[in-house]
Amino acid sequence: MSASSYAAMTEISLDVFPCVYGSIPWLVPPDEPEAVAFLLEHGTPVVFERGESIFFGEKQLVFLIESGLVATLPGRAADYRRAVGLFGPHTILGAVRALGRGSRGMPLDARTLTRVSARSLPIGDFLAAVEAKPELHIRMLQNCVRKSENQLEGVIVNDLLPVGVRLLVLLEVLMRAGGAPEEPEAGFVPLPFDVTVSDLATIVHATREMTSRLLSDAVREGLLDKKGRHLYVDRQRVAHGIVLARRDPKGICDA
Amino acid sequence: MSASSYAAMTEISLDVFPCVYGSIPWLVPPDEPEAVAFLLEHGTPVVFERGESIFFGEKQLVFLIESGLVATLPGRAADYRRAVGLFGPHTILGAVRALGRGSRGMPLDARTLTRVSARSLPIGDFLAAVEAKPELHIRMLQNCVRKSENQLEGVIVNDLLPVGVRLLVLLEVLMRAGGAPEEPEAGFVPLPFDVTVSDLATIVHATREMTSRLLSDAVREGLLDKKGRHLYVDRQRVAHGIVLARRDPKGICDA
Repeated sequence: MSASSYAAMTEISLDVFPCVYGSIPWLVPPDEPEAVAFLLEHGTPVVFERGESIFFGEKQLVFLIESGLVATLPGRAADYRRAVGLFGPHTILGAVRALGRGSRGMPLDARTLTRVSARSLPIGDFLAAVEAKPELHIRMLQNCVRKSENQLEGVIVNDLLPVGVRLLVLLEVLMRAGGAPEEPEAGFVPLPFDVTVSDLATIVHATREMTSRLLSDAVREGLLDKKGRHLYVDRQRVAHGIVLARRDPKGICDA
Repeated sequence: MSASSYAAMTEISLDVFPCVYGSIPWLVPPDEPEAVAFLLEHGTPVVFERGESIFFGEKQLVFLIESGLVATLPGRAADYRRAVGLFGPHTILGAVRALGRGSRGMPLDARTLTRVSARSLPIGDFLAAVEAKPELHIRMLQNCVRKSENQLEGVIVNDLLPVGVRLLVLLEVLMRAGGAPEEPEAGFVPLPFDVTVSDLATIVHATREMTSRLLSDAVREGLLDKKGRHLYVDRQRVAHGIVLARRDPKGICDA
């Protein structure tokens, strides 16, 4: 990933959507290329299947995600099934916790939404490398602030917007997580991650049934296409749908 | 404020309440004593009356709060009246935005919940002082991460807990904002800030009517006392009330 694409990915904003705290809801920005390179060189390769729990908040490890998608879930409330953060390729899961708390635990679970390839490294080794370079340390802490703010944005979006709008915003966010350009291309493109309907529901804080119905509506309206288990997105129509829905919020059924 | 009390205030945790992201919901931790001292020396004194809006997100200023309480509100959604962060004495409003975005704006409003004495300083002067000392810069960014995480905790608390529990947690949080010790004293103590019922409702994301009714319930149950416009809190009973309500969540009416 070049320096310019890194800057582009951390500075993206959804023009159709007025973000307050973060530049994009749920999705944390990619990490500093220098830290990513360090984990690629020194980390231990590890693969998780879809639906695995990574109790990283209690482990003494950080994980660089090379491919796939992970959601973080506040862990201590037993029946609380709501995602708060999304971690895509080139992000370090556990960085905020490591840089903010050192080795102190955090009751936060992470769950793979797809198959995930990652590199793991003990927190101590990670912190030693970062803290040896104050300038890198500062840039990584700035990245941590952006990570927290995008998660804050996601929770507020779930509190503020009707579920139909949230789901359209999420589709665009997933496109960005997969590296799609800021300017949407015309026509259908494959959604870069095969996230289950249940997991989509967990992210937009809705029921599986409501989410499934809204996806069917979007297919009927030509915003989405479905081939087998794979979803295809017309990003221009999705963006237009978000604008329309925000102008007439009563036209969207809330959960 | 001594170094030890600073550490104590930034490390507080509500034992009765299992925090995930932050150490305390809504309330941001006090800032680094060195940065506080700099603003006390170089900042311009300014006083806000209760209920004033400080559109700090669009201004090129940071504010050190010397006394009083400020709530931050996402600003662009016209009918969105929900507080996300609470800033008490010894906190710098605008620090996260300044250290994270420089002079770029942020569509975030802040509203005084009490009369507030503050010191204002141009963002440029603030950043120059912080960035001149990498070690201070790092500590302030770590503080910014904690600020964001406590706000994230607050939004999640509002999403997760019944409104009756949220209100009890908020009373304890307001005590801490006023410098109350971690270990609750017995008997009634004055709530250190005279926050209106409407503003309490804005923080716990409930209606004014529901909040007013729950406060009356708490008075009847001996957790609260009211003398004129002032509230008095029995912190031990409030803590016990939180534990009881969390054991039997169905006993609490949700909003």
